[in-house]
Parts: sequence; C-alpha cells; structure tokens
Amino acid sequence: MSVYTKVTAEELGEWLRNFAVGTLVEHKGIAAGIENTNYFVTTTGGRYVLTIFERLPRDALAFYLGLMSHLARHGIPCPSPIADVQGALLETLKNKPAALVTRLSGAAVMAPEPAHCAEVGTLLARMHLAGASYPGQLDNPRGPHWWRTTAPQVRPFLDEERSRLLDEELRFQSLYRLRDLARGPIHADLFRDNVLFEGTTIRGVIDFYFAGVDAWLFDVAVCVNDWCILADGAIDDARAAALLAAYHSARPFTALERGAWPVMLRAAALRFWLSRLYDFHLPRPGELVHAHDPEHFRRILARRIAESDRCPWI
Amino acid sequence: MSVYTKVTAEELGEWLRNFAVGTLVEHKGIAAGIENTNYFVTTTGGRYVLTIFERLPRDALAFYLGLMSHLARHGIPCPSPIADVQGALLETLKNKPAALVTRLSGAAVMAPEPAHCAEVGTLLARMHLAGASYPGQLDNPRGPHWWRTTAPQVRPFLDEERSRLLDEELRFQSLYRLRDLARGPIHADLFRDNVLFEGTTIRGVIDFYFAGVDAWLFDVAVCVNDWCILADGAIDDARAAALLAAYHSARPFTALERGAWPVMLRAAALRFWLSRLYDFHLPRPGELVHAHDPEHFRRILARRIAESDRCPWI
Repeated sequence: MSVYTKVTAEELGEWLRNFAVGTLVEHKGIAAGIENTNYFVTTTGGRYVLTIFERLPRDALAFYLGLMSHLARHGIPCPSPIADVQGALLETLKNKPAALVTRLSGAAVMAPEPAHCAEVGTLLARMHLAGASYPGQLDNPRGPHWWRTTAPQVRPFLDEERSRLLDEELRFQSLYRLRDLARGPIHADLFRDNVLFEGTTIRGVIDFYFAGVDAWLFDVAVCVNDWCILADGAIDDARAAALLAAYHSARPFTALERGAWPVMLRAAALRFWLSRLYDFHLPRPGELVHAHDPEHFRRILARRIAESDRCPWI
Repeated sequence: MSVYTKVTAEELGEWLRNFAVGTLVEHKGIAAGIENTNYFVTTTGGRYVLTIFERLPRDALAFYLGLMSHLARHGIPCPSPIADVQGALLETLKNKPAALVTRLSGAAVMAPEPAHCAEVGTLLARMHLAGASYPGQLDNPRGPHWWRTTAPQVRPFLDEERSRLLDEELRFQSLYRLRDLARGPIHADLFRDNVLFEGTTIRGVIDFYFAGVDAWLFDVAVCVNDWCILADGAIDDARAAALLAAYHSARPFTALERGAWPVMLRAAALRFWLSRLYDFHLPRPGELVHAHDPEHFRRILARRIAESDRCPWI
C-alpha cells in the first residue's frame, strides 16, 4: 500500500475549493505507485486523480506537469493537470507538493499483441512531435550521468560476471555521443503498466514522473525492451516490427538513428538494470516489497549485446 | 445543411499533419450550426470537431479559442482546442480561419427537469469562477451597444405595440449601470442545445462563439430564460429555483446582483428578441430556414416586465 499521506474528506473538500471542479463526492487511496501518494477523486464535476509528491523536487514537478498539460493541449491522451482558480498546476496539500489531474479510462495490457504495439509506436511518435514545442528543460534524470554515479553504489552487490558486464557496458556506452541524436521531451518509462487501453485503442498514457529531455530514440528503445520482449529477454520480431513501423510512419527515423539503434537498445536495458539493482540492494525503508528482480534487465542487456549485429526492425 | 466549405479527405489528411493527432480515419459534415462549417473528424488518435469559421474575425476567434482552452485546463467539460505542433490554436484551412477541438459525448436535453437545471447552475458558476483568471478581453458582442445599433434596423418591421415595447425596454435598460456587477468571461448563449448530458450529468458545454466579457448575472439570466421557461414564457419556479440555488451554492450572489436580477432577466430577453428579429427580417442569403420565431422572446420579455415585482428565485 502506497498511500504515504492520508487525506480526510474534510481536508480534501476544503482544498478542492481552489479549483472549479465542483464539490467532493468521494475519494479513495490507490495502492499502485511507489514514488507518490495517489487518490481517485470524484467531484460533482468529474473524475480526477490527486497525487501528493513524496520525494520529487518542485522544479522537476513543474517540468512534468507543464509537459502533461502541453501534451494534453496537443491531443495526447495523458492526464491533464487541472489549473486552480489562480491558474497554477502545482499545488500544496498537507505541506507537500500536490496536483489534481484528469482520470483516464482503460486498463493496462500486460500481454500485448502486435496491434497494441503498433498503437504504442504511433502514440510515442505523436508524443515526440507534440512535445517538440514544449519549452521546459530537464535532463533525463536517469541518463548517463546517473548511470556513472549509480554504478559504484551497486557494484559491491554484484558477482564478478555481473560486475564485468556493468563495467564493459558503461565503457561501451561512453564511446557514443548520443546527444547528437534528435532530442526532445521523452516519457522515458513507457512500460506496459503506463498505457491504458480499451480494446486496441489507447485511452491514456500515464506516469510522466521519469520524463526528461533526451534522445527520442532512447524512448523508443525503452518501449521495445518492454513491449516486444519474450520471457527470456529475446525480442519478439512481430511486435517489434509493428511498434517500429508505426513509429516510423509518424516520425521517420534518421540515418543517424538507424545507426545508433543497437547502442540505444543496450542503453535502455542498462538504465533499467541499474535502477532495479539500486532499488533491490539499496531499498528505502518499507519499499522492499515493490522491488523488481534486477535479473530481468540483466538478461535483456546481455541479449541486446549478443544481438548487436542483428537489428532487423529499424 | 450548413457545410458552407467543403473539405475533401485528401485536403483534411494533409492539414492534420500540422497536429500530433494521428492520421485521418473519417470525416463527416455536421448539419447544425448557422455561423460556421463543422465536421466530425475521427483520426487514429481520437474524435474531434473541425470548425471552419465563415464570418467571425480572427481577433474574436483568438478570444474564444483561448477561453475554451483556459476553461478546459480548469476542468470545465468544454471542447478543448488542439494545439498544432507549433503551439497555435487558430489555424487556416481553405483560406479561412479554422480550429480542431475535442469532440464531447452526450446529447442535448430539450425538456429539462429541475435536476438538469441544477447541473446547469453549478456548471455555470464553475465556468465563471474558472474564467475569472482568463486574461483575454472581448466585450459581449451582443451587449447594450449592439442593442442600440440593431433596434433602428428592425423597428421598420414592427407594429406599433412591438415598436413601443422595444423603445420602452431600451429606455428602461439605459437607466441601469450593469457594468457595476461582478464581471468576467461569459458564455452568453447557454441554451439547452449547447449543453450535452448523459443522464443528469453534464458531459459537455459547447458553442462559445457568442462569448464575451460581461456581467456574470447576464449569463444566469440567459440560462433561466431558456432552461426554466414554460411554453407561454412564464418561469417554471421549480426549475428556476433548482438552477439558481445550485449556482448560488458555488458562487453566492451579491446584494447588488439580487437587486439587479429582474432588470437582468429583461435584458437577456431583450437581447434574444432583438437578434431573432434581426435574423428573421434581415436574413443573410440562404439563411431563412434557420430563423427562429422572434415572438417567443417578445413574449418572454413581456412576461419578465409584467413579473418585475415577482422574482422569488434569487
């Protein structure tokens, strides 16, 4: 259960007077989510999600909420932060940063077919195109700088083989100037649990709290490493082809991107292997129950390295 | 049929490339609407309405689209204009101003119950509160100045009784300084056909193309004169009480507003009597089929005058 901050109906009813969303009907804590406290909030005006931010700094939150608002204005089905009567998106509740956003319908599809992957590819390209005019700036908080500072913290927990894999991949990645690729705001965490479907139609893209400015291709690689993966970490060609063809048809890859693709798949695998190692071995108090097995992304990284010469999907 | 400007699938598909809404699936002309050309537009990304503006000037359109975007950001269920990839809301299509907005669900309720009227009252108050921080400026295009310039144009078509009613009401209204009332952006045309319901829940408020900055109370009076009216022009007390109590509970009336209420009900009746006289007697080419009978609002005005001492609903 991840409701770190309890809010009573009385407190919430009072706080909602900052908005033009009507009056509180009911609210209910949401168990999912490990970074923030979330409530479903129903008012006489509609259905919303209240998020109370437990750890994220206000400047990063301004970037995230501004990005969501920007994308929603451009027709992307993401949570749209509700502006208060003064026009602000970032609020304070129980002395913590908080936001009220629209609640989307649909449900996550954990066993996607190629048709779902094609929708994700199209939506990702639309997000990149729509985000290009967003003026906010925030480096991808889980980019190369973070890899380099996190690796020494998790290395003591690794056996020799894994330690060598980590070092060699960091060295390999350091040879590439990924900043030369087309860049813009990226979601950076568009896993299956962050996309809400009805049938094969996407109704919502959620959880922008790892977003930042980075290579668009990194976002594509993060998606492929989750949406198009078999249990052993191998890529399912049919799903990868569907996702990439759909992305490409909305936002064609450049020659530079085609060349960087195998490197980027490895970078995306490294990023999640590292964060899962960190969360597993260095959990915050009370958090262990949420930690994912780091081995999943270690296998994916090893697979991507072994397959570096075989990337027929782009 | 009111599709004044025809758009082919090819033209529309090309134009949609300015947006991040995916590709065109289908489009279909909408017969309703006498000021603009409207199409339902379905893309791979969602359901939209395309409006091509036939007569409205670009500066007024910037006010309307900005207001809709502002209200949508504040949680009001109104059409939200989709920004193009450069961030603009107002576009050009077939050499005319155009906009793409979200399509809302629900249907108009032409025989409203008190429960519907209460929802309208609440939503109207929420719109007024949310609109207060909108910086755009546009005088109500159908305000007192327009009454005074329109009256001489329709007077030649009136018999003596109606002519006297018009002159006396203009004189009566000129005695009141309505500018002292609480003001802000108002919808100014929130008739039954502009509110979309599912059950008794409002899913959408549409058609902001008569909006402007004016007394909030004028907006309330426009609503009561349509939502709470019996066939003979008398006010249905149950519906009026429901609408006004709901409005008041979200945005309490001031003492000044209570005093001005009978005057404002007459002003709202005058405004629509005048515009219907104008549209009836001075139709634009091909427009006669849409003209409403002006007598409906003449009866309402006469009723409001006769009942000026009897306004128990505020």
